[in-house]
Amino acid sequence: MKRVGIIGIGHGVFGRRSDATVQELAFEAFRDALDDAGIERDLIDASVIGSVPEYHKQRSLAGVVQEYLGLVPKPTWLTEVACASGSAAMRTGWMAIRAGLHQVVAIIGCQKMTELSTAEILALMGRVGEVQWESGFGTTFPGYYAMFAKRHMHEYGTTREQLLEVAVKNHFYGAKNPYALFRKEISAEKAMASEEVATPFQVYDCCANADGAACVILAGEDQAKEISDKPVWLDGVAAATASMSVLRRPHLVGLPSAEQAATEAYAMAGIEPTDVKVAQVHDCFTVAEIMAYEDLGFCGKGEGGPFVTDRQTYIGGQVAVNVDGGLKAKGHPIGATGVSMTYEIAKQLRGEAGERQVPDADVGLTHNVGGIGQYCFVQVLKRD
Amino acid sequence: MKRVGIIGIGHGVFGRRSDATVQELAFEAFRDALDDAGIERDLIDASVIGSVPEYHKQRSLAGVVQEYLGLVPKPTWLTEVACASGSAAMRTGWMAIRAGLHQVVAIIGCQKMTELSTAEILALMGRVGEVQWESGFGTTFPGYYAMFAKRHMHEYGTTREQLLEVAVKNHFYGAKNPYALFRKEISAEKAMASEEVATPFQVYDCCANADGAACVILAGEDQAKEISDKPVWLDGVAAATASMSVLRRPHLVGLPSAEQAATEAYAMAGIEPTDVKVAQVHDCFTVAEIMAYEDLGFCGKGEGGPFVTDRQTYIGGQVAVNVDGGLKAKGHPIGATGVSMTYEIAKQLRGEAGERQVPDADVGLTHNVGGIGQYCFVQVLKRD
Repeated sequence: MKRVGIIGIGHGVFGRRSDATVQELAFEAFRDALDDAGIERDLIDASVIGSVPEYHKQRSLAGVVQEYLGLVPKPTWLTEVACASGSAAMRTGWMAIRAGLHQVVAIIGCQKMTELSTAEILALMGRVGEVQWESGFGTTFPGYYAMFAKRHMHEYGTTREQLLEVAVKNHFYGAKNPYALFRKEISAEKAMASEEVATPFQVYDCCANADGAACVILAGEDQAKEISDKPVWLDGVAAATASMSVLRRPHLVGLPSAEQAATEAYAMAGIEPTDVKVAQVHDCFTVAEIMAYEDLGFCGKGEGGPFVTDRQTYIGGQVAVNVDGGLKAKGHPIGATGVSMTYEIAKQLRGEAGERQVPDADVGLTHNVGGIGQYCFVQVLKRD
Repeated sequence: MKRVGIIGIGHGVFGRRSDATVQELAFEAFRDALDDAGIERDLIDASVIGSVPEYHKQRSLAGVVQEYLGLVPKPTWLTEVACASGSAAMRTGWMAIRAGLHQVVAIIGCQKMTELSTAEILALMGRVGEVQWESGFGTTFPGYYAMFAKRHMHEYGTTREQLLEVAVKNHFYGAKNPYALFRKEISAEKAMASEEVATPFQVYDCCANADGAACVILAGEDQAKEISDKPVWLDGVAAATASMSVLRRPHLVGLPSAEQAATEAYAMAGIEPTDVKVAQVHDCFTVAEIMAYEDLGFCGKGEGGPFVTDRQTYIGGQVAVNVDGGLKAKGHPIGATGVSMTYEIAKQLRGEAGERQVPDADVGLTHNVGGIGQYCFVQVLKRD
């Protein structure tokens, strides 16, 4: 079967976007992706929207976005798998092309979170955990990941310094990304002095909610080669699940869904973990990035802490990770994140990432987690 | 490319299901579909969930259902396009198989609506209309469709008797469906005497909210032939959109998205409207079924009223429509409806519909509308 290629990418600024509705955010990213591809809107056969609908006053979000982008009467559908919704949109868009159903598909991750108060957001997010036995008794997202962190520290001797090095790295690169929410470097001392959130986490261990959108335009192999002189190939699109309740997981020091999805994505793309030069991983909390290094096979189990302090995930190390700032510094508009990750990898593989460019980036990866790891989507991307 | 076949179908009772959670409803339908297919759960490669998540206290619905069905660590994703969410799930499941990504996929439409009060449901549904200029000023779903009805009556002389004949027919058949919410026939007189809802609609013009689930298991052509001795082929899977705001539509006497999707589905399956022997159409209100006859080309524009009173859509007429009771009598658990429609057509094409069997049913169709027609999904199904 033929490959599916990325022919256009677009991105808007992440942050408190009180200047724009969710469909306006989607349009910003879509317009940029069309310009980037050098194609007219008429060439788009369908769109896929990655978003978690209930954060928006206006529902039927796919229809609203489709009309605002001028894509009516073409088909659209929305995918929702919590914070991995954007990657599920990517994956179904890939399917639509491979299935021969559509030729050119626009994938739009978009999310407006700041229509709601922080309390409302927390209440909604809690419901993404297991309601009956976990979030119903007060478990929050920081609480879940804090448990992972405590266990990782206990089993492997991971330290606070190692955890916070993730934040330092991602802020270092976020400062170089014009679309990032936080465009400032932080020191380890500053991070260590920040307010406590959920032991062992302090403020700088946690990513921030944001509004934002990103767009990726996909096309079948022949059309991609025709339209683009620098197509990036989406050669692995794997997904896996784990139990909703973390209590039913085999362990708390990684995500079984991520291990499974990574194994399948590598096999599908015919690569090894060591082939990956640049990766976007789901650093909703510092420990999540450290677990991702291990789940993706970038280093051995328990070695994630030293891996980052040894600068193996900085540019120049074994694999550059989250050099757009990651969820931590770029911000996390939940439905947009998976598409934003893909945007950054395409940018890197095309050699257009400017001062955050990873040298010789020929194979890239995205790792997008939904909920507390009940979903994980892993993509492998290659350039010619 | 190869065809995609239906190898198993399952359905639960629609209604106020205070006996079951949404994942339990999903399990009922899934278990029946596995039994029907005669396969073990291990053979399922992935699931797709059709649902509108925000009606449920527990979010991350795909993950919850996936775990409850025992399908972890296989992939899952949820599709949402309002009341057509089940058909979008069907369509992405079809894509996954045609794309060579998965071999056997379970599509589960499931929805628990009665966790919420009627006022809460109305508030949520309103947001599926255009919030800024329409539902924000009080337009409700019955209000939208009442406008369509008034206009249809004005332009084509459609009568109250013709509209209510849809309800009489669908209750007549719903009485024969063990899964239907309302299992009783009604007379035209009774319908005409019912309470007013939104002029010209009375109670019997409107479908009812319900809890419920349905499941369809899809497989690639070779596997479908191996597993099933009566596969039903999903040969057309078209979708289209129309503007969110009905004020921006070219007319109010039909759904442009339905016309477009029907044209594409017929072309994809290589059939004409007159080839269709049995159809499930989206009769959320009586006028919606009459518009569907016309949009699908079963009769000419404006002829839908006489078409039903001439009994052309009863069994024995030109095309049997909603002989499972339709949304009207079967009930409308929004995310489940599209999958339930597919269930009924598969049942009919296999000749297993008992006292509501349509003779010589070899080609069937589903027509599933999302919102006020901003989405329409049309499927064409065939037996060997």
